[in-house]
Amino acid sequence: MKSYLDLINECIRFPYPNSDEYSTRIASYYFLVHRGYTIGYLIPSVVEAIKNLRECSLFWSINDQAKTVKLKGEPSVQAHSWAIEQTVISWRKDDVFKVLRGWRNELYAVYAPPGKLAFNIERSASCLFGVLTYGVHMMAYVRSKAGLKLWIPRRAYNKQTYGGYLDNTVAGGLASGERALEVLVREAEEEASLPAELVRNNAKSVGTITYFYVRDARAGGEIGLLQPECQYLYDLELNEDVVLKPCDSEVEEFYLWGVEEVAKELKDGHFKPNCAFALIDFFMRHGIITPENEESYIEISSRLHRRLGFATP
Amino acid sequence: MKSYLDLINECIRFPYPNSDEYSTRIASYYFLVHRGYTIGYLIPSVVEAIKNLRECSLFWSINDQAKTVKLKGEPSVQAHSWAIEQTVISWRKDDVFKVLRGWRNELYAVYAPPGKLAFNIERSASCLFGVLTYGVHMMAYVRSKAGLKLWIPRRAYNKQTYGGYLDNTVAGGLASGERALEVLVREAEEEASLPAELVRNNAKSVGTITYFYVRDARAGGEIGLLQPECQYLYDLELNEDVVLKPCDSEVEEFYLWGVEEVAKELKDGHFKPNCAFALIDFFMRHGIITPENEESYIEISSRLHRRLGFATP
Repeated sequence: MKSYLDLINECIRFPYPNSDEYSTRIASYYFLVHRGYTIGYLIPSVVEAIKNLRECSLFWSINDQAKTVKLKGEPSVQAHSWAIEQTVISWRKDDVFKVLRGWRNELYAVYAPPGKLAFNIERSASCLFGVLTYGVHMMAYVRSKAGLKLWIPRRAYNKQTYGGYLDNTVAGGLASGERALEVLVREAEEEASLPAELVRNNAKSVGTITYFYVRDARAGGEIGLLQPECQYLYDLELNEDVVLKPCDSEVEEFYLWGVEEVAKELKDGHFKPNCAFALIDFFMRHGIITPENEESYIEISSRLHRRLGFATP
Repeated sequence: MKSYLDLINECIRFPYPNSDEYSTRIASYYFLVHRGYTIGYLIPSVVEAIKNLRECSLFWSINDQAKTVKLKGEPSVQAHSWAIEQTVISWRKDDVFKVLRGWRNELYAVYAPPGKLAFNIERSASCLFGVLTYGVHMMAYVRSKAGLKLWIPRRAYNKQTYGGYLDNTVAGGLASGERALEVLVREAEEEASLPAELVRNNAKSVGTITYFYVRDARAGGEIGLLQPECQYLYDLELNEDVVLKPCDSEVEEFYLWGVEEVAKELKDGHFKPNCAFALIDFFMRHGIITPENEESYIEISSRLHRRLGFATP
């Protein structure tokens, strides 16, 4: 059985500035630079793959001394999005990266200071450039006589990432141009058959979690890729008579579990990691993890709200 | 009228690593070092005052090149607490620092890695050494037909710090050896006449906020002192028939205000700064500040949960 801090340490492994590990680790990365600002981190194997592109010199400017990677030409959204697209399409064609086998055909937005769109990028390729991505995670719960119960889905066993793992009630990524609440409403309908009106009127925005996720074997694809993430969190209190059921094929089934059962599954490592983080935050907001019962209370709170230092919309 | 981010920027001004401002600012501080770990930051005027002590060489070892300040001798809790006590008593006698005029005769705990008590220090002196201090902040609220209402106290006009400012329903500092919940129960009784049993059974632990507060004129005393703080947060939902009233002389009166009124007072700068932070966190947890209505949503969330890098209990 793992501690809550173990769950965090397993995946939020990007060190903090002012530590020895940070200097060593940062020295191994390249910086994706846009108009003088770092907007992503690349591991060396990705930089190698850029150098191996036939169109490399057309699109990319790489400085091995400064460890910077830049897109050439006028930094317009259109031009840069196109250059990124050509790059990842080429990689996909040549099967350079396993993560691109999970091609989503969905564009994520990448921002640069002062919060403007820099370019759009195919969702499955965002971790290759270590750019910040956004999602929504919602926990639906019931106040029963026996205490709080949570609606927990199991991901379809054939899902390309984390198949069979437990999840938050509803979760999804923000495609370019989308706002958090609209994504939540859509995903809640698709994943849990929750009526749009119910979600729109009752889902409560309860904060964010932000962290540097480092991809491991469970994520599928290359290991060590950096994935800074921001999850917009929501709570939804439901009456006992509402029963959640899968709508699309992404969910295997739904469970309505008490807090102790959820905590056990969490500590046994059965949740998808970033869903575990959202759940830990839920437990902290609902008086389940407290300063009295959790010795790493302050550390957990800070680790889940890292200031990532990237531009946001 | 200020934005929520303005309220944070005014007082949480300690820069983040990897910024130019950080290097400049850090270069102006001395580090309070305990067994090789930094456990506090001192501004130069405090280091000067240490050097001016008659007993300086007995207790203190200062390295101006490395910018370190250490207590001499065996690092036992008793020996170091005593040396700190002699130091601050001497300063108080000679009226060296205005902040010590607010002497509390209450000891705060300072921890060092791996989370063990390093020494105890008089509460009013903790900001001179820039050590992390702990408190509890609770918001009591009512779900009325007209929406959420919050119980807001006005601090007594003659209170030595932030007299007349608005406050969280209950707030207090953790003295050495105290646990968060017991402080909350005691302060709720003292400040708001709330029965201990009601608070113990119904106050919900909802997380922490952590930040580097930089003292300004409103705090009274010297300006620029660093005050890293961790506040354990609690929510208390009350029935409409419960009426809060001051018990001790620290509170002028209580108001039961709707969210809009509270937000207005907040943005007008009428709240004590760290109570404003706790209230902003409350607004984020309760769907009042949302990704849709607050452009600095992510930044605010991260800024209120900084990983301070100090040992905690």
